Amino acid sequence: MTIHAQPVPATPTIDDIRAAAKRIEGLARRTPLLESAALNGKFGARLLFKPEVLQRTGSFKFRGAYNKISSLTEAERARGVVAFSSGNHAQGVAAAAELFGIRAVIVMPADAPAIKADNVRAMGAEIVPYDRYRDDREAVARPYVEQGMALVKPFDDPLIVAGQGTVGLEIAEEAAAMGVRLDAVVTPCGGGGLMAGIATAIKALSPDTQIWGGEPENFDDTRRSLAAGSRLAADPSATSICDALMSPMPGELTFAINRRLVAGVAAVPEAAIVAAMRDAAAHLKLIVEPGGAAGFAALSSGEIDLAGKTIAIVLSGGNVDLKIFAALVGGARQ
Amino acid sequence: MTIHAQPVPATPTIDDIRAAAKRIEGLARRTPLLESAALNGKFGARLLFKPEVLQRTGSFKFRGAYNKISSLTEAERARGVVAFSSGNHAQGVAAAAELFGIRAVIVMPADAPAIKADNVRAMGAEIVPYDRYRDDREAVARPYVEQGMALVKPFDDPLIVAGQGTVGLEIAEEAAAMGVRLDAVVTPCGGGGLMAGIATAIKALSPDTQIWGGEPENFDDTRRSLAAGSRLAADPSATSICDALMSPMPGELTFAINRRLVAGVAAVPEAAIVAAMRDAAAHLKLIVEPGGAAGFAALSSGEIDLAGKTIAIVLSGGNVDLKIFAALVGGARQ
Repeated sequence: MTIHAQPVPATPTIDDIRAAAKRIEGLARRTPLLESAALNGKFGARLLFKPEVLQRTGSFKFRGAYNKISSLTEAERARGVVAFSSGNHAQGVAAAAELFGIRAVIVMPADAPAIKADNVRAMGAEIVPYDRYRDDREAVARPYVEQGMALVKPFDDPLIVAGQGTVGLEIAEEAAAMGVRLDAVVTPCGGGGLMAGIATAIKALSPDTQIWGGEPENFDDTRRSLAAGSRLAADPSATSICDALMSPMPGELTFAINRRLVAGVAAVPEAAIVAAMRDAAAHLKLIVEPGGAAGFAALSSGEIDLAGKTIAIVLSGGNVDLKIFAALVGGARQ
Repeated sequence: MTIHAQPVPATPTIDDIRAAAKRIEGLARRTPLLESAALNGKFGARLLFKPEVLQRTGSFKFRGAYNKISSLTEAERARGVVAFSSGNHAQGVAAAAELFGIRAVIVMPADAPAIKADNVRAMGAEIVPYDRYRDDREAVARPYVEQGMALVKPFDDPLIVAGQGTVGLEIAEEAAAMGVRLDAVVTPCGGGGLMAGIATAIKALSPDTQIWGGEPENFDDTRRSLAAGSRLAADPSATSICDALMSPMPGELTFAINRRLVAGVAAVPEAAIVAAMRDAAAHLKLIVEPGGAAGFAALSSGEIDLAGKTIAIVLSGGNVDLKIFAALVGGARQ
């Protein structure tokens, strides 16, 4: 029998998610479930929205980042943390690091939304920019890891998945308190950490509830990977308005979980994303960033059974530059 | 001793507000208190936002309307209700009437935001348009009252004030649960019903907390009335982006309450309203309509003591046409 210095990462369970929920209690916001009669009427379903745009740092990412950093040993944590991120994970890591009073270095695409970079800097983290299309972000982060800083991966880590899974735990608990049986939970899908965490929580507590994802049609790597049965990369030259969902490939851990638990992933056109952002603004009064609306947009794909169903929809983030939001939601594309 | 068919309207008390809270429970949403580290830093105060934009119908108005309609006798209610309103009260009345399955007629300015009129019609109410600058809205409503329909006034009614006061009750309860002592509560002010209800609740539960209002500088009738010691009208030709706050004069009941309980009302320029809408969008991820942001905008007036204080701010509504929102928040006026 070997004694490991660190436990071997394992697929997270509902118990890991419950442990994460305890760690983030009082620090992460327990976001409500919101409902709009107008949207219920429009979609012919009862829609319950989980607005993680109201979460600390404006996206769900604080949940996983805090769960990971709080699980480091004190000695590990004292050496600081490094993360690569399109912006929302960066803010989650920066916020958690600030709470622990430790150094955080964020490797971030040079073209990330200004609001995300500004928020990261405001929380005292250091930004190291990289070129999304030319640089290997893991290589940019490596020297900091070699200095002894702990890498906080954006999704492919059981503690990150368990932290994001608290979104699913809260949805299940809230639905139970409302006396509601959920037919499906729909969530945006980038690297798959949020979807894997939610699927783990929901399938443990409500096995008949389907889990669905929404991906931008140019970044439908999880959808194609599920169809192929193995992980496929996104086109490295592809672009999308969903900066939060432009991860290059499903994670190893997240894909293994999602493959087992997810009913399907819909590829959604950019116009459907904008329409979903507009619906959320008009009827829920929420600013949702493009990537945060991909789950909601998946409802328009025709792939998810809506008629008379009760469906929870995760609006995963709201960190969009206001000028871009205004152009998309109020603009000529209406 | 005379026995009245109807009790004489009296100044509502905290008990009336508690009774209203029981009536609306499970129908109105208990909105959370939201906080942003970035906004706390910007204003040098701890700001706790009460987002009534997330309320049923997108503003606080459902609270008072439901409280009033549920307090009618069954015979009164069966004859239907009539209301005059710039749009948010209209939606509150329409939603409450729909829940009771009764007829609702709404006398509404022809230039009200389309989103407000659309929502009223979607809830099955009938709209009677009038000209905001030429017609007497009470006269337009009168024939319906003469037919036996109950008038649901927008603010000058103790049951309406008590209903809106549940906003203050929830703020006080939530602050107590957080272990927070509020130095001030700041709210938009139109006819004064929301402010009067909040003041009644807060002063009963936390007498040292100051109550402040924010009014558009072109509709500072409550501010001027407080200074004069008697009710003064707004300039009948004045305009404002705050369609929700363009009531012609403080109410008799609401002014009597506000005169006694309110620390002050700040007159805020339209540019400050837009800046507040932008701050709420960027940091709270909320769509706030111009009138809904007047309390938040009052923080920039210099009249309210901010340094190191803890202040609750009511964001009272979010029913703004998206094109107008986009032009204000993302536009060249930045």
